[in-house]
Amino acid sequence: MSEIESLISLGRMVDPIMLNYIEKAELRFIPILKHQILAGGKRVRAALTILSCETAGGTPSIALKPAALIELIHNYSLIMDDIIDHGELRRGKPTVRAKYSDAMAILAGMFYREALDEIVDDCPKPFEMRKLIRNAIKETIEGERLDILFEQAGREEEYIKKHKYTNVSLNLYFKMIGKKTAALIKAACTAGGLAANASNEAIEALGAFGWNIGLAFQIVDDILDIYGEKTGKEKGKDIIEHKLGNIAILFSLKELNTKEKVELLNMLRKPKISKMDLNKALKLIENTKAKEKAYNLGRKFINEGKKALLSFQDSEAKSKLLSLADFILNRAY
Amino acid sequence: MSEIESLISLGRMVDPIMLNYIEKAELRFIPILKHQILAGGKRVRAALTILSCETAGGTPSIALKPAALIELIHNYSLIMDDIIDHGELRRGKPTVRAKYSDAMAILAGMFYREALDEIVDDCPKPFEMRKLIRNAIKETIEGERLDILFEQAGREEEYIKKHKYTNVSLNLYFKMIGKKTAALIKAACTAGGLAANASNEAIEALGAFGWNIGLAFQIVDDILDIYGEKTGKEKGKDIIEHKLGNIAILFSLKELNTKEKVELLNMLRKPKISKMDLNKALKLIENTKAKEKAYNLGRKFINEGKKALLSFQDSEAKSKLLSLADFILNRAY
Repeated sequence: MSEIESLISLGRMVDPIMLNYIEKAELRFIPILKHQILAGGKRVRAALTILSCETAGGTPSIALKPAALIELIHNYSLIMDDIIDHGELRRGKPTVRAKYSDAMAILAGMFYREALDEIVDDCPKPFEMRKLIRNAIKETIEGERLDILFEQAGREEEYIKKHKYTNVSLNLYFKMIGKKTAALIKAACTAGGLAANASNEAIEALGAFGWNIGLAFQIVDDILDIYGEKTGKEKGKDIIEHKLGNIAILFSLKELNTKEKVELLNMLRKPKISKMDLNKALKLIENTKAKEKAYNLGRKFINEGKKALLSFQDSEAKSKLLSLADFILNRAY
Repeated sequence: MSEIESLISLGRMVDPIMLNYIEKAELRFIPILKHQILAGGKRVRAALTILSCETAGGTPSIALKPAALIELIHNYSLIMDDIIDHGELRRGKPTVRAKYSDAMAILAGMFYREALDEIVDDCPKPFEMRKLIRNAIKETIEGERLDILFEQAGREEEYIKKHKYTNVSLNLYFKMIGKKTAALIKAACTAGGLAANASNEAIEALGAFGWNIGLAFQIVDDILDIYGEKTGKEKGKDIIEHKLGNIAILFSLKELNTKEKVELLNMLRKPKISKMDLNKALKLIENTKAKEKAYNLGRKFINEGKKALLSFQDSEAKSKLLSLADFILNRAY
C-alpha cells in the first residue's frame, strides 16, 4: 500500500460510523440512504480531521465521530448537488437521484442532515462542533449558489438566466471556491483541533492549513475538469457544463485576445456544446499558459497551508498531513 | 376579528423571528429565502406551541422561539415537498421553485435547516428541543416517502414505479399521516410544554393532544383535497395527483362493488386524468358515505385530543387550544 493509499484507508475508518447513523431509518429507505456512502470516495476530509486531531496532540479515536460528521456533510452536499446538476454518474456509479429518483434523493439528503445532527450530540465539544458545522454548511450552500450563477448556459429558469454572472473576477472566483470547497475542508481540520481540545492558536493554525489546501483542492479539481488528466474525469467537463467559475478558463480569458475571448465565451454560452465546439474551446485554452498558472497558484496555496503547520511539533501525524497536502496538488500531474 | 382570526394572528407573532434567522445570508440570496415565509400561511403550528406553553403554565414570550422553530420546520418541508411534487402554486402564489428554480429552492431548503438549527440554540432546553425536532423532521421525511409511494401514477422513475404501493390498508394510511402531518403537530405542542418547563406528564398530555388533532388535521385536508369545499382548494386535487393515500378514497374503495372499485383505481392509475375521468371518479366517491365517515373519524380524533387536555386547569389559553381543535375540524364544513 502506498503512503497515500494508507492515508486514505485512514479516512475509511469512518464508514461504519456513518452507516450506523444513516441506518436509523425504515427498512425500505435504508438502501437509498446507504447508496451514497457505499459508492465510495477518497474520504480525504475524514483523514484530515483524524490527522489534525493527532497533530494537535489528541488520540485518533477521539476524532472518529467528528471525522464521520465532516464526511457525512460532504456526502450530504454531493446528494443535493447531483439533484441540482441532474448528475447521472459519480465515480462511475449512478448517483442517488439517477438510481432512486430526484424525489427519493431529496428525502435522503434531508435525512443525512438529521443523521449528522445526531452525530454532533455524540462528539466531543458538541456545542462548538455544532456551530462549526452549521457555518460550514451555510458556506457550502452559498458557494453552490454562486457556482450555479457562474454557469453561462444550460438552465432554462427565468430567474437564473436573469441573474447569472456574465463576468467573474478572480476575487469573486476565490469567494466562490472558498465557500464551495475550502470552508468544509477548513472545518475538517478545525474539528480535529476541537476534538483534541487544542488551544485556540492551534485550532486556528489547523484551520489556516485546511483553508489553504482547500483552495488548492478546488483549483486542482478545476484543472482536472478541463484537461482531464490521469483521473477518470472527462476532458473538458466544465466547458460542457458551461462553467465560467473555473480557474483555467478565467486565466485563459485573461490571456486571449479580444476575438478569441469572445469566441471562448460564446462557446460556453451555447445551449448545447458540440464535440467540435469543445475541441475548439480546448485548443484556445491549451494555447495559453492557464494550466501552468493554475498549477502555480495551487502550489502557492499548498505551501501557504504547510507554513501554517510550522508551529506544531514534528510527529508522524504532522508529516502525514504534509503528505496529504502534496497529494492534493499532485493529483493534477 | 373572529376568535379564530385572533388565534391565527397569535401564530403570526413568529414571522419576524423566522425572518430574523433567515436573513443571515448573502444579500442576493435573501429574497429567495424570504419568499416562502412572506407567501403566508395560517401559522397554526406556532399558535399551538404558544398556547400549549401557556396551558402548561408558561408565559407566551418564552414560547416564541420554539414556535418560530416549529413553523420554520413546516416551511422547510413545504419548500422541499414543492420540489418533489413539481408544485407551481401554494396559497395562490408561485412556489419557491416555480419562482426561483428547483436549484435555488433546494439551496433555500437546506439553508432553512441551518437557520432552524440556530434557533434551537436560542430556545429554552436546547438539548431536549433539538432531539424533539430532529425526530419530528425524520418522521416528516418518512411520511413524505410513504405518501409518494402511495401515488398510483405520475412519476416516471423506475424505482418509484417498481416500489409503489398498489394497495394501502387503513393501518398503513394512519402510519403515513401520523408521520407526514401529526408528528410535527405533536412536536409543536410538546415544544410548548418543554418551554413551559412542564412535568413529563403534562408534556405527554400536550403531545397526545397534538398527535390526535394532527391526525384530524390531515383527515380534514384529505376531505378538502377531494370535495374541495369552502377553501380555495381544487376539487379532486388528490385524484389528479394520483393519490391513494387519501382517507376519502380509501373509504370509498371499501364501499364500492368490485367493478366500481377497479374503475376508480384505474382512474388513479391513468398517467393523465381528463376532466371527464375526474368527474367520473368524483361521482363514484360521492355516491359512497366516504365523506361522512371521514368526517366522523376526524371528529373522533378531535375529541380524543380534547380529552388529553382534561388534566390541565381551565384557562384562557386552554380554551383557545380547544377552539383551535374545533377549527381544524370545521374547516371541512
